[in-house]
Amino acid sequence: MTIPAISVPKGFRFSAVAAGLKESGRPDLALIEAVPGTSAAALFTRNRVVAAPVEIGRAIIRKNRGCIRAVIVNSGNANCATGPAGYRACQRVCRETASLLHISTNEVFPSSTGIIGVPLPANKIVKKLPQLMATRKSTPRAMREFAEAIMTTDTRLKVASARVDSGKQQISLAGLAKGSGMIHPHLATMLVYLFTDAAASPIELKSLLKPICDATFNCISVDGDTSTNDTVLLLASGQSGVALKKSGIREKFKAALRTICQSLADQIVADGEGVKHVVQFEISQARNHNEALRIARAIAHSLLVKTALAGSDPNWGRILAAIGAAGVPLDPQRISILIGDELVCRGGVHCDFNAKKAHRALSQPACTVRVRLGRGSAKVVFTSGDLTEEYVRINADYST
Amino acid sequence: MTIPAISVPKGFRFSAVAAGLKESGRPDLALIEAVPGTSAAALFTRNRVVAAPVEIGRAIIRKNRGCIRAVIVNSGNANCATGPAGYRACQRVCRETASLLHISTNEVFPSSTGIIGVPLPANKIVKKLPQLMATRKSTPRAMREFAEAIMTTDTRLKVASARVDSGKQQISLAGLAKGSGMIHPHLATMLVYLFTDAAASPIELKSLLKPICDATFNCISVDGDTSTNDTVLLLASGQSGVALKKSGIREKFKAALRTICQSLADQIVADGEGVKHVVQFEISQARNHNEALRIARAIAHSLLVKTALAGSDPNWGRILAAIGAAGVPLDPQRISILIGDELVCRGGVHCDFNAKKAHRALSQPACTVRVRLGRGSAKVVFTSGDLTEEYVRINADYST
Repeated sequence: MTIPAISVPKGFRFSAVAAGLKESGRPDLALIEAVPGTSAAALFTRNRVVAAPVEIGRAIIRKNRGCIRAVIVNSGNANCATGPAGYRACQRVCRETASLLHISTNEVFPSSTGIIGVPLPANKIVKKLPQLMATRKSTPRAMREFAEAIMTTDTRLKVASARVDSGKQQISLAGLAKGSGMIHPHLATMLVYLFTDAAASPIELKSLLKPICDATFNCISVDGDTSTNDTVLLLASGQSGVALKKSGIREKFKAALRTICQSLADQIVADGEGVKHVVQFEISQARNHNEALRIARAIAHSLLVKTALAGSDPNWGRILAAIGAAGVPLDPQRISILIGDELVCRGGVHCDFNAKKAHRALSQPACTVRVRLGRGSAKVVFTSGDLTEEYVRINADYST
Repeated sequence: MTIPAISVPKGFRFSAVAAGLKESGRPDLALIEAVPGTSAAALFTRNRVVAAPVEIGRAIIRKNRGCIRAVIVNSGNANCATGPAGYRACQRVCRETASLLHISTNEVFPSSTGIIGVPLPANKIVKKLPQLMATRKSTPRAMREFAEAIMTTDTRLKVASARVDSGKQQISLAGLAKGSGMIHPHLATMLVYLFTDAAASPIELKSLLKPICDATFNCISVDGDTSTNDTVLLLASGQSGVALKKSGIREKFKAALRTICQSLADQIVADGEGVKHVVQFEISQARNHNEALRIARAIAHSLLVKTALAGSDPNWGRILAAIGAAGVPLDPQRISILIGDELVCRGGVHCDFNAKKAHRALSQPACTVRVRLGRGSAKVVFTSGDLTEEYVRINADYST
């Protein structure tokens, strides 16, 4: 459903500039403007420590009953653990943005990403707002420039788009994301913006967004760290003239939205800091969904599993040990493990397998590890990456 | 209390040989023989997947009511996930050891450490048992050779000893350990043997061992992985003629045992795979012990914190983010963080601090990070290390 040429849903304009927050001098301030009547739904990090823009964004969505006209995002500074001054800095950026766009401050949704605990230089941002306003466009290029400006340690742009046809009716969807470290379930340093020109109420959007996020963004992990700034925002401009509540179109829209979210989630893991191999962990025959997810996270989070994957090493004993330490009262004798197509462990015990084939499967850029628990019928697919020396290099000296 | 010259408590003899389990050809089979009447207490891994020697060791301690005459340990193979054949191989090694020592099979305590899921070559072990018996000695050197033979990725011997004097009475204690990866609370790939010539019942030993383990070995972490083979065994020969139940001596003995366990725990973290900096996390003002421990583990387990420590980078925002993600319903505005003596975060917010001093504190081989939660009066001291590229190198290609 994803198409190579990125199309922009009607009703949105984008722009980006360099405001000097990134030391590199690259673009770090970006704007989305949406037409009047745009509906919104958002999900946020579950971290107890949250950044000022998360607090403000959460309040705005509630106050405004899901009416959003602009999104203002900076990279290079998370505006987290910055106290009342950080809160006021965020408010000021929203107020100035609203004033220039002649809308209400409560219609401006803020996001920040970058280092934690450094005061946000609001002056630098405010000074650049007029230039940001002057360059907004509804082109795919402008959307890509937005996606580029919100990157931190990302090495690649993350965008996806889709179209839904139902007879004469047509809806367009697009999404863009940033994130490559501090990535773990519960939305970790990840900013995701989703757009559509469908017409839908904020409540409709929220009911669609939650289960799709649970199955996509909440089923990935790069390093197991949960960020203070995660945000997923879905905006619907209504400009296609097609209402989601019309029968027939809703299910197709849902499928397209899920495809976009899955694509962005996969792009985030593939661009994970230092990640050389993307691994899908399929945990099946669990007693329930939570149990399957708990085991998936325990495996995906194990440093010994992650480093074995870095070496394309079919060291399944580490996978079994991670399963056993997950806190689920399971019977090891019912566990089977497959690496690629090779059955490496049956009944909790090693079995003769072709080590070369298993090694080859793990050497691919993407591969699958299947775990069968023999306890029930629940299943989870969880995507994660390996842990390489490059991850350590990237993260051993980020702030100073 | 630890003294440089290692002394061996009366009643124990040690030996070690190379049985060809390690590809390097280094010693990998080791024996402890204890005099008749020796009492024992043991603690094991909480992993659901356990190795055959853990199953058998657990059963033996129960069956025999804590009477142990010999400990037979191999490195190079964990004998885990090896099924009924692995269980029988372990039984056979115990039986042959018992036969050569003219004791009951139920008095032989087995341990294994090494790769998971590879059949244990019992033949190689059994063939070397007579040589192992022929060389057993009660010297410090023999004890050190035992400690060397049980090493896997360890780079250093881990031994400690102490003496307790009470008037004319004297008790000797010693301990040795292996472990440098797969180290996390709940006893992770760690084998620890503790000896004393005090006289004590198995029940007395157990009641001493459990709380001391909780405060020492269960408060360290290298990589957050919990092994399938962890064992802590405490043996008391009674050869000093001093009974622990005598008033006055018990508390001194307890303090000495704790010192030895703390020393071994510290040695394990310091020798952690790739560890360049040992960090003590002091979590105070928690509502209760569990909460403090949960936060300590969340910080010590965060890849972003661990990599920042590798770079001696006072990036306290990552510590705050890890605290917030620990699942404790805390108020970020009450949190303070100190790196060395520098207060880097007060009331959940950055405060001006001397970055050079904080960097210098983190550059030391050992340093302290203090977190005050402002919720209560419980406190935990947790020791962990940084995550370096070397850890990844060591673990990316261990089995194949």
